[in-house]
Amino acid sequence: MATIVVEVMLKPEILDPQGQAVAAALPRLGFTFATSVRQGKRFEIEVAGTPTAERLAEVEKAAETLLSNPVIETFLVKVEA
Amino acid sequence: MATIVVEVMLKPEILDPQGQAVAAALPRLGFTFATSVRQGKRFEIEVAGTPTAERLAEVEKAAETLLSNPVIETFLVKVEA
Repeated sequence: MATIVVEVMLKPEILDPQGQAVAAALPRLGFTFATSVRQGKRFEIEVAGTPTAERLAEVEKAAETLLSNPVIETFLVKVEA
Repeated sequence: MATIVVEVMLKPEILDPQGQAVAAALPRLGFTFATSVRQGKRFEIEVAGTPTAERLAEVEKAAETLLSNPVIETFLVKVEA
């Protein structure tokens, strides 16, 4: 049993209203550390057995077709330690 | 300039309809690798300067009060390499 993580973020050139809302809310709550905030999605996928290169390629394909919209988003596939 | 990442996931005992929808859709598209899927949020926060322990503590506090709902979610604060 292993966990494969897919991180999906909007491309830098795409406007991110959710992230902007967070960035605007932080100073109102007294948090002044952020210069910018981007919000994305995170998928934790449990797979049986060890994650082989073949399986990771399959996850990449799924990330591209189901988990992200490649027109506006980028994704990253990681094996969780 | 550094990037601090906050990962927010539903607690394991909380039902995750989004993750379940993804888990149900994967086999319909021919992907059979997943035994379970959980969906969460990911925030990329840009901060000026280097992320000190003090600043990370501030981000933890913001994650607890603004970025997550501690009743149903857990979060993890990381400094991106």
